[in-house]
Amino acid sequence: MRTGRSTLVFEHRPRILSSAAVTGPKEGRGPLGRDFDLVLDDPAFGEKSFEQAERKMFQTACEICLKKAKKPAEKVQALLGGDLENQIMAASLSARALEIPFLGLYGACSTMAESLILGSILTDGGFADPVLCAAGSHYATAERQYRFPLEYGNQRTPAAQWTVTGAGACLLSQTGRGLARAVSACVGRVVDLGISDVNNMGAAMAPAAADTLLRFFADTGTAPRDYDRVISGDLGGVGSHLLKEMMRKEGQPLTDEMYLDCGLCIFDGRDDVHAGASGCGCSAAVLSALILPKLRSGKWKRVLFMATGALLSPTSAQQGETIPGVAHVICLEGE
Amino acid sequence: MRTGRSTLVFEHRPRILSSAAVTGPKEGRGPLGRDFDLVLDDPAFGEKSFEQAERKMFQTACEICLKKAKKPAEKVQALLGGDLENQIMAASLSARALEIPFLGLYGACSTMAESLILGSILTDGGFADPVLCAAGSHYATAERQYRFPLEYGNQRTPAAQWTVTGAGACLLSQTGRGLARAVSACVGRVVDLGISDVNNMGAAMAPAAADTLLRFFADTGTAPRDYDRVISGDLGGVGSHLLKEMMRKEGQPLTDEMYLDCGLCIFDGRDDVHAGASGCGCSAAVLSALILPKLRSGKWKRVLFMATGALLSPTSAQQGETIPGVAHVICLEGE
Repeated sequence: MRTGRSTLVFEHRPRILSSAAVTGPKEGRGPLGRDFDLVLDDPAFGEKSFEQAERKMFQTACEICLKKAKKPAEKVQALLGGDLENQIMAASLSARALEIPFLGLYGACSTMAESLILGSILTDGGFADPVLCAAGSHYATAERQYRFPLEYGNQRTPAAQWTVTGAGACLLSQTGRGLARAVSACVGRVVDLGISDVNNMGAAMAPAAADTLLRFFADTGTAPRDYDRVISGDLGGVGSHLLKEMMRKEGQPLTDEMYLDCGLCIFDGRDDVHAGASGCGCSAAVLSALILPKLRSGKWKRVLFMATGALLSPTSAQQGETIPGVAHVICLEGE
Repeated sequence: MRTGRSTLVFEHRPRILSSAAVTGPKEGRGPLGRDFDLVLDDPAFGEKSFEQAERKMFQTACEICLKKAKKPAEKVQALLGGDLENQIMAASLSARALEIPFLGLYGACSTMAESLILGSILTDGGFADPVLCAAGSHYATAERQYRFPLEYGNQRTPAAQWTVTGAGACLLSQTGRGLARAVSACVGRVVDLGISDVNNMGAAMAPAAADTLLRFFADTGTAPRDYDRVISGDLGGVGSHLLKEMMRKEGQPLTDEMYLDCGLCIFDGRDDVHAGASGCGCSAAVLSALILPKLRSGKWKRVLFMATGALLSPTSAQQGETIPGVAHVICLEGE
């Protein structure tokens, strides 16, 4: 069901039956610490490598989510998800353990929104039900992969963001009582304004976020004020500021009351994280710990959840490529 | 629309309006050379790096596909695709150039089937139309990434397969006259029987291929003889033999007349490729150059296209992980 040029509407408004978030200890000390389902004492999660820990977090978030909905894994018809590791190994190895038919996604830090959109499409169209959507990231594996191994003691720039050690999962279905319902969505285009600093993901992602929001508002004839919150994934301090500037210039201003960035929700001033949090796990964990509970309680009626991703690899950065961004938005409403 | 436990049926049978394949020179010298839309003289495609060449092939395959269907990129509502590079950069950077809303996928060499299944879901459910599905790979980038840089002159084992330098694309729509139509599909589970040799992808993928085929046949009440061809993506000589063994033991034998592996179609005996071809681009290029033309001409009426993927990264291999496989199957019929 399409409206406008590129926004799609979910006729049956699929339900998010349950959600779960698992995070590392640093995230657990932040403002949302008590709202995560599991906070690890040890960022290695008892495993021999951080990659294995990332896999275990992803899998555990899926398992807790299923348990909360009282659905066994063998009843789930599809798992859609991804992470930031090369070849999305955390998601793939979790799918091996869970034995659920698996569609691997890569949208960098936009993956949670990508999986929710595709999961809603599968559910709404009657192709699969229930469907599990998940995403995760790990600070240590992301630093090693995109920048430097932690052992180098690399100094972080003021614009740098801290990749969240965490994973989140949601179970979608057409039936049952949900925490929230998926109403409509807009798939992002890949936008590049020429940022090449691998320590400034927020600036790389902000133009894509503005592009997606403006297309969504134009297609639906709505404006930021029609939503209790417009929530971006992990723009952080620098990217959020840029997004607000761009939206103001386009005549769709995002005021501080209506706008929220997941990257600015997880850590507080006591953590030395510079421009905020990032990573697939950032928006996935905040969705489960903050956004869905607010929708369920009726405190918020209608929000836009827009996860944002910076599309780079170590190779592309070394070969002099600039960093394009992508942002997918999904509109969620309370029951 | 579901049938059985995990097979989905496309009620409106979305059409593949057009397809395209671009390959490297070695592939062009093979038996399908004259059936590819573009064969490069130079595996670097005039670019400074093989990664850039891979991106340009992916993008060119998309552009030729759109041109053949006479659809401008701005009319396309979604691009679904991926490749084997870390963080699927070839697909992401192509999406930047094409400016089409982009859903990044990672299914290793199963990506072409994954994109066709998700593309058919989007089209069949009325969520987006037309939709572009694509996948690609490059021998030099894959060797550098998964095994060794070419400059090392690494000796290949008998079970090793040769990653195809190539890309393929298909445009899907509910309307228009198609080359073929998508009828039903089954999403694969991640299956691991403990293979750990990064030079034997065929053996790693064969169990997943058998798992998906058996689930699809059970769900649909069909057998291999109900299809003109059952076509696997890139099992190669070793994996094909294993798949046939497994299917025979399960009472669903695949005879030589009805079974085909894309990995055994691209190169002939004169090429020193050992166990055959592999890579996302392998099944994507064979789909466009061989399978869709046979369906269009009526020579084949109904085939199963099952792309197979081995889920590993250099890090997972170095950390001692075994190599799970995944296989997605889609049933295609002539108009």
